[in-house]
Amino acid sequence: MTIQPLRLGIAGLGTVGVGVVRIVQEHAALLTARTGRAVSITAVSARSRNRDRGVDLSGYGWEDDPVTLARREDVDLFVELMGGSDGPAKAATEAALAAGKPVVTANKAMLALHGQALAELAEANDAALRFEAAVAGGIPVVKTLVEGLAGNAITRVSGVMNGTCNYILTRMESSGLPYADVFKEADALGYLEADPNLDVGGIDAGHKLAILSAIAFGTQVDFDGVQLQGIERVSIDDIHRARDMGYRIKLLGEARITAAGVEQSMRPTLVPADSPLGQLEGGTNMVVIEGDAVGQIVLRGAGAGEGPTASAVMGDVCDIARGFTLPPFGQPAATLTKPVRANAATECAHYLRMSLRDEPGALARVATVLGQSGISIDRMRQYDHPGDDAPVLIVTHPCAPSDLSAALQGVVATGVVNGDPIALQIQIP
Amino acid sequence: MTIQPLRLGIAGLGTVGVGVVRIVQEHAALLTARTGRAVSITAVSARSRNRDRGVDLSGYGWEDDPVTLARREDVDLFVELMGGSDGPAKAATEAALAAGKPVVTANKAMLALHGQALAELAEANDAALRFEAAVAGGIPVVKTLVEGLAGNAITRVSGVMNGTCNYILTRMESSGLPYADVFKEADALGYLEADPNLDVGGIDAGHKLAILSAIAFGTQVDFDGVQLQGIERVSIDDIHRARDMGYRIKLLGEARITAAGVEQSMRPTLVPADSPLGQLEGGTNMVVIEGDAVGQIVLRGAGAGEGPTASAVMGDVCDIARGFTLPPFGQPAATLTKPVRANAATECAHYLRMSLRDEPGALARVATVLGQSGISIDRMRQYDHPGDDAPVLIVTHPCAPSDLSAALQGVVATGVVNGDPIALQIQIP
Repeated sequence: MTIQPLRLGIAGLGTVGVGVVRIVQEHAALLTARTGRAVSITAVSARSRNRDRGVDLSGYGWEDDPVTLARREDVDLFVELMGGSDGPAKAATEAALAAGKPVVTANKAMLALHGQALAELAEANDAALRFEAAVAGGIPVVKTLVEGLAGNAITRVSGVMNGTCNYILTRMESSGLPYADVFKEADALGYLEADPNLDVGGIDAGHKLAILSAIAFGTQVDFDGVQLQGIERVSIDDIHRARDMGYRIKLLGEARITAAGVEQSMRPTLVPADSPLGQLEGGTNMVVIEGDAVGQIVLRGAGAGEGPTASAVMGDVCDIARGFTLPPFGQPAATLTKPVRANAATECAHYLRMSLRDEPGALARVATVLGQSGISIDRMRQYDHPGDDAPVLIVTHPCAPSDLSAALQGVVATGVVNGDPIALQIQIP
Repeated sequence: MTIQPLRLGIAGLGTVGVGVVRIVQEHAALLTARTGRAVSITAVSARSRNRDRGVDLSGYGWEDDPVTLARREDVDLFVELMGGSDGPAKAATEAALAAGKPVVTANKAMLALHGQALAELAEANDAALRFEAAVAGGIPVVKTLVEGLAGNAITRVSGVMNGTCNYILTRMESSGLPYADVFKEADALGYLEADPNLDVGGIDAGHKLAILSAIAFGTQVDFDGVQLQGIERVSIDDIHRARDMGYRIKLLGEARITAAGVEQSMRPTLVPADSPLGQLEGGTNMVVIEGDAVGQIVLRGAGAGEGPTASAVMGDVCDIARGFTLPPFGQPAATLTKPVRANAATECAHYLRMSLRDEPGALARVATVLGQSGISIDRMRQYDHPGDDAPVLIVTHPCAPSDLSAALQGVVATGVVNGDPIALQIQIP
């Protein structure tokens, strides 16, 4: 019996698409040895046909329309690498699934916003839908959660999942440059999404966290339930002050299940500088998984880039070539429950920075309001100031984030602060 | 259509076996949701029937003979948790595979010594043979290599894979106690294998490395090809001197493929104290994988213990329940090549300690012989000494390990050193 090759149709020939083409071309023998069948490419699709992408595409068919590519009879598996939560990416994915064809995608936005509907469509058509590359680049975290740790009740998933934000924060610290300058650098280096708010607003990382949370807890993906805070307001002064206290600031995601429901948050957080998370440099991602049997598992690797993301895509392609089948989120979509959203209730210390008006008693009023709201102050420091803008740094004793939010509303209502205070959680050790 | 439950027969009710029973009992609903079928236990087997193991076994059948258990008609999957490379573990595994039944095992010794024959038997009978729990406890490293990174040519696998050795080395440093005392402590705590040489001689970790190496490079498992050095000769002085230079000593395994062949080694190595490997405490394991597409992936977690190891066993059980099939070593056993053994050729700095006879010119003779052998000295220090035993510490510039071995033979031949010098590699940063 001759086993037929697995014929890919690849839509999207950016960095990742080119990486996938390269692996298929360079590792043909390896892929056949490992999966028991040849992996080939039938046709590709992208916005521009004539751009030189550094790989030879002459042997493949071309489709202007990814939906047509997805429906081609000679395409067994559709690889979606266009990006964008809706539009052509979603249309082509749906077309492939409706035709009963497996889909491998790196599209976190599409999964985070339409994951439930797509999983239902995939299962109704008995087609695989896999997305290892959508979360944490080359780190096989989806596989670890869905398969490796299938014997565990997962209690918590956390980590640093956006390399661009981590690059900006670590570069600010190493260069001493302010946020705006490093943002421009990152843009010039091509690190930022077309809409940079997806990165620095924490949205991209929030998409990834929502996907992991759904898998971990057997709930429907709930991106709107992620409490999001971007890194735009983290100043170079915050970074220096955090460092003086032995911390570094990371865009940290956390999904946790408690009796109250599912807590999901993605926010800049002070982590101990000498901890594995604190030592994470540049574009590296780290995911920490806690399960009732396994304890804590930590996974670290490149969060983006041609090779790592293409590696994740090909891991999924190989699983499909090997005939593995399982529901997209690890259990049937119909059994995924709607998550009860819970506010982060775990008490933690907070770092606060605010700017006081230059008037007598301002600092005392802030301290009084915080005290009356039950927020206990661990450290407080007022800095020299040139004009009507006295920076104040406060570290609180552990308190519930919701109590702190209410307290800060009270502080703003006094009228003695300029603008909104910034509040960053300090990771519980 | 009703899907039949997957009925386990578990041989071996030590820590791990009890952990597996506990997960099957406590997570019945979770396992069914995730795998699409119930996972149940038909019967168990162990040396002593009447011991109280803290779990209720009254609902299960009992077999004195694990081979009988493996052959029972009402056992669909045989879980081998007895240990030992041969004897009942191997006999029962072979019986199950010969009957076409999948086997999940945590038995690194059996896999390292008989992996090729068992894989051939499994494939001939179309039965799965899975062993995630055999390597690095709860860390899904086998799955990561075989599946997640299937699109990569793997170039290197390294790490700390024996929690007991890591416990002894970190405990020596934190307590200041000599090796012999900490060894006794570890024994009293039940951390050591029945034959402690399996742990401290590096054999257990070497078994794990040989398994990972085979998977990574598509070669037949070759435990005899692992260059082994145990931790028995690492003294508290070595630990202190390494620390003074910014290093910690870890039992580090490394498998690497080069043009010359496969290099496998497991030996105490100086690693930078502030690196992730250097910071690894107690029983934690860390595995570092390098692939041509993914770059470097680091996995960290508990390397042993009831929960973590049972978690790994259950990951394999769930894969089988889900119907995943793949060859034990990731590609058909017949395609695994015999590895060409290569000596470690990569040059690295070395830490040397030797004891000199109290005679004039002894140190000069050592230095001369090393120099004549092409070994260049970075640092050299002679310590105070009470009798005819002057400890000398030398750090070499990078050199090939084989050149150093030859040079040390020359040093011993001078007759000015007492006993054998100890040589530890310093990890290339």
